[in-house]
Amino acid sequence: MIHIAIMGLGTVGTGVAKVIAENAEPIRRKLGEELQVKTVLVRHFKETPYRQLMTDDFAEIENDPEIRVVVETIGGVDAAYEYTKRALIAGKHVVTANKQLVAEHGCELLQLARKKQVSYLFEASVGGGIPVLHPLTQCLAANRIDEIYGILNGTTNYILTRMVQAGASFQDALAEAQEKGYAEADPTADVEGIDAGRKICILADLAYGHQVDPAQVPMDGISGISLKDVRIAERAGYRMKLLGRALRLPDGRRTAYVAPHLIPVSNPMSGVQDVFNAVMVRGNATGEVMFYGKGAGELPTASACVSDVIEVLQASPQRDEIGWEADTEGFVKPDVLSSRFYFRMLGSLSEAVSAFGSVEVLSENGETAFLTDAITGEQARTFSETLPVQACFRVLA
Amino acid sequence: MIHIAIMGLGTVGTGVAKVIAENAEPIRRKLGEELQVKTVLVRHFKETPYRQLMTDDFAEIENDPEIRVVVETIGGVDAAYEYTKRALIAGKHVVTANKQLVAEHGCELLQLARKKQVSYLFEASVGGGIPVLHPLTQCLAANRIDEIYGILNGTTNYILTRMVQAGASFQDALAEAQEKGYAEADPTADVEGIDAGRKICILADLAYGHQVDPAQVPMDGISGISLKDVRIAERAGYRMKLLGRALRLPDGRRTAYVAPHLIPVSNPMSGVQDVFNAVMVRGNATGEVMFYGKGAGELPTASACVSDVIEVLQASPQRDEIGWEADTEGFVKPDVLSSRFYFRMLGSLSEAVSAFGSVEVLSENGETAFLTDAITGEQARTFSETLPVQACFRVLA
Repeated sequence: MIHIAIMGLGTVGTGVAKVIAENAEPIRRKLGEELQVKTVLVRHFKETPYRQLMTDDFAEIENDPEIRVVVETIGGVDAAYEYTKRALIAGKHVVTANKQLVAEHGCELLQLARKKQVSYLFEASVGGGIPVLHPLTQCLAANRIDEIYGILNGTTNYILTRMVQAGASFQDALAEAQEKGYAEADPTADVEGIDAGRKICILADLAYGHQVDPAQVPMDGISGISLKDVRIAERAGYRMKLLGRALRLPDGRRTAYVAPHLIPVSNPMSGVQDVFNAVMVRGNATGEVMFYGKGAGELPTASACVSDVIEVLQASPQRDEIGWEADTEGFVKPDVLSSRFYFRMLGSLSEAVSAFGSVEVLSENGETAFLTDAITGEQARTFSETLPVQACFRVLA
Repeated sequence: MIHIAIMGLGTVGTGVAKVIAENAEPIRRKLGEELQVKTVLVRHFKETPYRQLMTDDFAEIENDPEIRVVVETIGGVDAAYEYTKRALIAGKHVVTANKQLVAEHGCELLQLARKKQVSYLFEASVGGGIPVLHPLTQCLAANRIDEIYGILNGTTNYILTRMVQAGASFQDALAEAQEKGYAEADPTADVEGIDAGRKICILADLAYGHQVDPAQVPMDGISGISLKDVRIAERAGYRMKLLGRALRLPDGRRTAYVAPHLIPVSNPMSGVQDVFNAVMVRGNATGEVMFYGKGAGELPTASACVSDVIEVLQASPQRDEIGWEADTEGFVKPDVLSSRFYFRMLGSLSEAVSAFGSVEVLSENGETAFLTDAITGEQARTFSETLPVQACFRVLA
């Protein structure tokens, strides 16, 4: 049994507790023993399923030798900064999603962690549940990183998507985002590019190995973008996106900023919609690689924190986590999978309709092309073998 | 000085030597000392820049205590399998891009590596230079992996892209791919889905922790796809893609296969063009995350191998590779960056033309919107401050 503590029980903190409970089995398989939340630090006691674990006294975590990892989800700098330092000094690993703290004090906290021979990890601070920081530092380690750019803030990307798709003004799209819970009552940090700015600082810190001071990074947001420009850009084959961007200059110096950009629709980043995030990294050997997914939200962000917890606990030169067992027990044929299927066949629809009930006709021109409702691969094969079917493909749901 | 050996000097092996030479400085920063290729195993001696390092006797590598890591880029099973086993038994870490060997014998080789307390890493075997395996096993460790699907073969994706974009038949598109060097003279392993099949096996092995026997995985290729179906799919809002797919069933069993699919254009994977690859992983906490980039090629694949080399050499619980220095020396303002800019301004074009030479007009309707050639951010700002500019954005190159 491995014990950890959570500091702060907001959205992400609650998510961390949920992920640990929900995925107890795969986590146990990775760690070789059970992972359990022992203590939760809160400011005010509330009636939640975690009431028995709560304390409002950080010293209870600090002085508990059983607690090996502390997950900091307080947010902001003040208390989070103090408790993180004290936890590291007490010899505990600290994992966080707190981008402001990492952007502003990450360098100092990492030095402190190194001195105390513990880890300070923060994968969740950039891109929420999308793996970005570890791939950047480990998997691209053989590259010189020439550029990083990304859609780093889901709120602003949602607003821009609505401006493009629904012709909404910035104000209307913001109001809609607030209604849906994608934007806060005070949306300043999101719409003015400050949140994206903190994230591009962390990316640049890791890519280039030097502290980037957020105060030196120009951050333009989207509040000044007019629908007119969005439309003209669209007609010309560009999509408007708010990007954080960090570059290495040919002389070895580097820069970073946040600003709205026109992106050609041929760039896959132009297709990143709604609250999704994406980060493109350009290495001198690997070229451009992109990481895409949900950049925020309770469970995605929490899962990145818990993955960091697993990593600090299992760190070992043997890399036992990469491997699998020899048995093939439990493998089944994909024929059992249901999905819609696309068929093209000679002749009329009547046989298809009698086989499948309803179908969606795509084309009738001597031959008939249609989509079925969900059927199994086996049903599709049986149909293909008994009728004059010219083509048959699965539709990805 | 850390010494390694390369086995096989084809495309990837040569790329490994190039990446180690070209990126000596960032690699030295990560490892704290220089990384050097000491020995290169070949079947026949050739005049290349690596002539002095060549041997045709594997025992020279096997018995050299200075060589800590062996990069296997021989390919196939026979010699690669034997030498990998012998290198692991000799206590050397082995890194490879060989998907056939990993798919067919990975489980056994990993067990051997564990027994000898060395690492066997193969990030390059799936997705070339795209980080996929490490993110899957480490960054998503807190997730139950419910599904993985991907465009895992660049040759077939290039052919399908040409069928969509140029209306080429399969045969013509294949011929074109062969001309460009994207397809081999015998394209069977690519176009029949065998290459993608090996990769989905490796992904499923790691995601589910059990060996997937490639012989049990149905592999359909693209040689039977007709242009007619591609066109009908397009008109209906779908794109035809060859996918490898592995799923966890609700009862905990799992399956995997390779087949052409119709993908709705709203799915970001539908926009993956040409020789690019992409892998989507669906975790029960993090939702869908996608990894995108060049799935093959000398330098991308080699950079993944060298990153694995760095990882086995630096494996340590302190994770010193995550961190940065305190100084902010070398940070410059992004104003120095050149790019095309988008402007919208009141009045006529003449002032813009006199400022920028030539511009590309997007709209003239009382106001004028245009794109400049590459200018610096400072030039753009100066122009904005002196003329009635209504909007100004960078264009991402």
